[in-house]
Amino acid sequence: MAVTKIEGGVNSAAGFKTCGLRAGIKAGKENKDMAMILSDVPASAAGTFTRNLVKAAPVKWDSMIIENKKTVRAVVVNTGFANASTGAKGYENSKRTAEKAAEVLGVETEEVLVASTGVIGVQLPMDTIFEGIEKLSNALSYEKTAGDDAAEAIMTTDTHSKQAAVSFTAGKEKCIMGGMCKGSGMIHPNMGTMLCFITTDCSIDRDLMQDILRKVVNDTFNMVSVDGDTSTNDTVILLSNGMAGNKAITESSDEVEKAEFEEALRAVCQSLAIEIARDGEGATRLFTAEVKGASDEETARILAKSIITSNLTKAAIFGKDANWGRIMCAMGYSGASFDPDKTDIFISSKNGELKLVENGVTTGFSEEKALEILGADEITAKCDVKDGDKAAVAWGCDLTYEYVKINGDYRS
Amino acid sequence: MAVTKIEGGVNSAAGFKTCGLRAGIKAGKENKDMAMILSDVPASAAGTFTRNLVKAAPVKWDSMIIENKKTVRAVVVNTGFANASTGAKGYENSKRTAEKAAEVLGVETEEVLVASTGVIGVQLPMDTIFEGIEKLSNALSYEKTAGDDAAEAIMTTDTHSKQAAVSFTAGKEKCIMGGMCKGSGMIHPNMGTMLCFITTDCSIDRDLMQDILRKVVNDTFNMVSVDGDTSTNDTVILLSNGMAGNKAITESSDEVEKAEFEEALRAVCQSLAIEIARDGEGATRLFTAEVKGASDEETARILAKSIITSNLTKAAIFGKDANWGRIMCAMGYSGASFDPDKTDIFISSKNGELKLVENGVTTGFSEEKALEILGADEITAKCDVKDGDKAAVAWGCDLTYEYVKINGDYRS
Repeated sequence: MAVTKIEGGVNSAAGFKTCGLRAGIKAGKENKDMAMILSDVPASAAGTFTRNLVKAAPVKWDSMIIENKKTVRAVVVNTGFANASTGAKGYENSKRTAEKAAEVLGVETEEVLVASTGVIGVQLPMDTIFEGIEKLSNALSYEKTAGDDAAEAIMTTDTHSKQAAVSFTAGKEKCIMGGMCKGSGMIHPNMGTMLCFITTDCSIDRDLMQDILRKVVNDTFNMVSVDGDTSTNDTVILLSNGMAGNKAITESSDEVEKAEFEEALRAVCQSLAIEIARDGEGATRLFTAEVKGASDEETARILAKSIITSNLTKAAIFGKDANWGRIMCAMGYSGASFDPDKTDIFISSKNGELKLVENGVTTGFSEEKALEILGADEITAKCDVKDGDKAAVAWGCDLTYEYVKINGDYRS
Repeated sequence: MAVTKIEGGVNSAAGFKTCGLRAGIKAGKENKDMAMILSDVPASAAGTFTRNLVKAAPVKWDSMIIENKKTVRAVVVNTGFANASTGAKGYENSKRTAEKAAEVLGVETEEVLVASTGVIGVQLPMDTIFEGIEKLSNALSYEKTAGDDAAEAIMTTDTHSKQAAVSFTAGKEKCIMGGMCKGSGMIHPNMGTMLCFITTDCSIDRDLMQDILRKVVNDTFNMVSVDGDTSTNDTVILLSNGMAGNKAITESSDEVEKAEFEEALRAVCQSLAIEIARDGEGATRLFTAEVKGASDEETARILAKSIITSNLTKAAIFGKDANWGRIMCAMGYSGASFDPDKTDIFISSKNGELKLVENGVTTGFSEEKALEILGADEITAKCDVKDGDKAAVAWGCDLTYEYVKINGDYRS
């Protein structure tokens, strides 16, 4: 496999400039709060969006553009306010954001995607947004630092910015794909619940790219949960501008070539998805659930997600408590079918692996060893339901005092 | 309506003796950990149980008895260990508990129901249980204090015991119905997730009683959520011994008479359900969601439950934050169909009521007034989706540091 992780992010692929800076939307003196991505040439665009019935205005705007299969030149992102539950005026404000960027950048309004994140129900401060767009257009750059700035500018309660990039080949050409995303509350299955922007210089048929994106998002971002709440603003955008010069990948291309593109996208998305889970609000631990031996993939997915979503299990992981009963219980109420009396449960970390449960009952494991394993900052629960050969992985985090603190006091 | 709330609990109805005492199962020197209920005469029994695929051994034992429509004489409850995920030996231990009680009380083994709550995956300490049963059989009493003792003995992380009782009439006879229950973690829809025992001296056809119980549990205990986790041990038992001397209520009885029995049961269950929500692990506030204007009942129920289950909304209630966007968002991802752009949202407490949202957008409400309303210890969110005339109510609590503390450290 020629997919290789590299240093970089959303402007690593050829022909993408980015920037991030403080426009003055968010309270606090220093936080960056706006980012921009510009492709030198029209890029084909794929996207997946929140399945929440309450869709933010920018989600409605972007969905319209993606559904119309338009090419895209730029993306404008703001934090501070989500522009959700803002009615007709909110949609108008998303459109005006695109119009302003189009005017400043010399592109079409419908070539501009927008994204917002932050407090729900408040109108965007348009004067500040407009000033921000002017500043952004002057700061665009191919430099790595400009990618770093963009990744930083889209953060809300994230404790660090999140980027990933890979190199791969298409035909004989070397291609780059890179992305950035933000978490870290309202993170739950049903469209990973975050903002994520990925760019590539690889040329690929737009519909094929959309299909691959949907599939990969399903296995990565949609298998992450921080708190069970699905946001109104979830957005994953993938832009491809073809500047690598490869012959466009199409449905009829060689399977190996299609697989390599998918593998590249999976590497970027999985890396970003894990970073979102690890950086869940208040989280101190990455908590992964691997389910195997399921009769079908959907069963494995439901079981894995139920484990990492259970508040009681998450609190136990925070408390380094090998409380496997809560894992079994979470599988039991997931709605998926399995036989508890055949199920084995292990915990695993860099400090070792321990079988807690065999065929539904305790192994009489060493609590001391369990405590040692649970002392690591990346914990995996492995469950074998011995009912088939399908598997799934889900990523979450522990539930901590800090989560409550962050969310009890978010607006103030 | 002649249903009247009275002081009392699980032994208020004629012919029921109870007791609660310390057998020595739970760590700590003073906690009561076993309770017993005895009916002077065989009582018909109805029950509803957890829908978790992982069912505790006592749930399997009781389900068998309820399904066989046996009459019941006694109930034995232990805390400390749940006897769940304990395999064949666990079931054997539930059966041995019933056998021992039957022997001591001079009744049939299959006339004894059992219930357990506590840590999952550990076998019951049978010697201690047997000694406890001997002690319990000597302590049974009609006195109110014996009801109080029983209610106290079934507590786990509950901060106070929970009882309710009503008087009502059937035919010309005055009847009593009373109950006790325990919360307060692993509390979530899908069978209220707790132990609840209700007794009545009213004579009623067993199948009719089962139907009414199922209906009332659906509207009360199943509309409570503390943490989204559905327990392995949820049990609601209703025993009727007919000692009020009324002519048995049957399917063909007067509608008013059937309605009064249902109303009595609803009063007891709703009162206990609200106490469970209010006493949710770590909770500082009772948080109620009332949804009206729904096109059908199921929609109203799903929306109301989604609001009180949302971690983000619960944390906002803890933080006295009028973050209605999270309420809207929770309704949006619930899976129920409604129009966000027609929805009104109010918050309400003893300190007043305030419209936060009209037709999907903010009313520009006074934050000061909102803070005053949210300062009360019972908060209600009222949502009108203006799409019909169906309504539902769900009860929950806020999400606090203390919840995490309790559940990060439960086993130790």
